[in-house]
Amino acid sequence: MKGILLFGHGARNPEWAQPFHRIRDAILAREPAALVEPGFLELMRPGFDEAVDCLVRQGATEITVVPIFMAAGSHIRKDLPQMAANAMDRHAGLLIALAAPVGEAEPVLAAMADYAINAAPEI
Amino acid sequence: MKGILLFGHGARNPEWAQPFHRIRDAILAREPAALVEPGFLELMRPGFDEAVDCLVRQGATEITVVPIFMAAGSHIRKDLPQMAANAMDRHAGLLIALAAPVGEAEPVLAAMADYAINAAPEI
Repeated sequence: MKGILLFGHGARNPEWAQPFHRIRDAILAREPAALVEPGFLELMRPGFDEAVDCLVRQGATEITVVPIFMAAGSHIRKDLPQMAANAMDRHAGLLIALAAPVGEAEPVLAAMADYAINAAPEI
Repeated sequence: MKGILLFGHGARNPEWAQPFHRIRDAILAREPAALVEPGFLELMRPGFDEAVDCLVRQGATEITVVPIFMAAGSHIRKDLPQMAANAMDRHAGLLIALAAPVGEAEPVLAAMADYAINAAPEI
């Protein structure tokens, strides 16, 4: 069974996690049977490992990690592959695939552009 | 005249700025006369101040800062208002408005949810 891990940086302010819960809710609204959990790099729980373990407990055998990042900085290029490798070592038979950051997806950028235009009326 | 400042965190990898240029291009494709520039908090140029000065040189008298952030962490809650206040002090008559982070916009979150579902086929 497949799962989705919404990977975020994390922040000290607990409200920072809200968009991740809203993305999760939007996924579940479209795919009620989906296994989807947020997982954060730092400052916030659940951490990446906790999210992987949670998805595995729910029956996930393949996890697609979707970085909710604008682009691939060092956290995505270095930290994430290492965390994914460690998680696959920890869970025999688990496959983890890493998607490109959402900020590289054209429809996401188009939605951001629309938002920026609407945020600056009379442009 | 109004301008849009696409405010990002910045990263060491120059490619990290690409989504900001793509958002800028998407805005200009819809609004060819728009004044729009990226501006970064750290690690990357142009910095916020450089972006403000660039927009002012182009004739902007009102700048809407659109945080290309998932949510309002301390950079948005504390650093950004101070940088905006300093920029208004530096430019007599300039008005700077701060929009909510793009990650709080429903259409942006919906696009991210779609991307996540498509990134994990057979969900």
